[in-house]
Amino acid sequence: MSFIPPSLEKVIEQFSKFPGIGKKTAQRLGLHVLKSNRENILSLAQALIDVKEKIKTCELCHNISESSPCQLCLDPKRDKTILCIVEDSSDILLIEKTGYNGLYHVLGGSISPLEGIGSEHIFIDDILEKAKQFSEIIISTNAGIDGDTTALYIQKILSDIDIKITRLARGLPVGGQLEYVDEATLAKAIENRTTFND
Amino acid sequence: MSFIPPSLEKVIEQFSKFPGIGKKTAQRLGLHVLKSNRENILSLAQALIDVKEKIKTCELCHNISESSPCQLCLDPKRDKTILCIVEDSSDILLIEKTGYNGLYHVLGGSISPLEGIGSEHIFIDDILEKAKQFSEIIISTNAGIDGDTTALYIQKILSDIDIKITRLARGLPVGGQLEYVDEATLAKAIENRTTFND
Repeated sequence: MSFIPPSLEKVIEQFSKFPGIGKKTAQRLGLHVLKSNRENILSLAQALIDVKEKIKTCELCHNISESSPCQLCLDPKRDKTILCIVEDSSDILLIEKTGYNGLYHVLGGSISPLEGIGSEHIFIDDILEKAKQFSEIIISTNAGIDGDTTALYIQKILSDIDIKITRLARGLPVGGQLEYVDEATLAKAIENRTTFND
Repeated sequence: MSFIPPSLEKVIEQFSKFPGIGKKTAQRLGLHVLKSNRENILSLAQALIDVKEKIKTCELCHNISESSPCQLCLDPKRDKTILCIVEDSSDILLIEKTGYNGLYHVLGGSISPLEGIGSEHIFIDDILEKAKQFSEIIISTNAGIDGDTTALYIQKILSDIDIKITRLARGLPVGGQLEYVDEATLAKAIENRTTFND
């Protein structure tokens, strides 16, 4: 398509590699770049470069950060007695919204025998070293097979330490209707039912 | 949100200004930037800079281009007797797919009395100068009120020249069902019905 300027074509091509962005959306984004304010686009370009040049992994929690240790690990206001283990840095964004105020440990994935990902491929074995500093460890892996496998592995490596290990509850989503909940979730919701008339 | 590195936060903020990209999608795109290959992201950043630094408007057709006159205007293979007038550069992408092989004129918008956009705000009055070089002018403005107003204006300024002026047909979309077509379109489809048994 020689009638599209090469630089714009490159922008469109790169955008179409993003998740959930098809060819048409990439084109629309490209045209937006063309029309929008020069400063905004140059600042986006600089930020993209910075993400690649500046962001590294925190040596303590393995979260993404521009410094190591990261701001979260260094924050004096965080509760240093509780550790939340997540699969991915992006999970931290979600958990932060709930008001959780402890520390984190980012695994950088989950154990997946099917995909050939073992414990040696993720940041899991160093949990043992630091576990003693905490009074509770919340395992917040995803609720699928890989997440459960990973949770079991963590439980196993920590079995010799006297520490409270918890997992996220399974049950009805808030606002959810029984009709739309799968059997396995409903069974868990019944199993873990909570007292109502206390 | 101090736990997101500032450069990543800037990328997310800029992405969320794009059309059709909400806060959650912007976050997903930001995390994709984080995970993906360094070269790809740096080449996207460079392309964004290039779009802003290199792309200008062709002095002949007002299409976007890295050179002026643009490659389309200079292409010896294009049919130089037919001119297609479009509102926006992006319309060229669509019309090119139909196999059209003439030249273009990009208005850079449409006349819109309601939004205070008059003929002096778009590239419309210079059509008169160049019209004589062509044997046919196809007005391909959008089929709404502003597009129609613009089409009428073009017809008016070209009324003294002996030239064939055409407009895009109105009718049923290919594959469309009568049931889902609005009355105005159906009326046009009947009015402009074509002979079937020739």
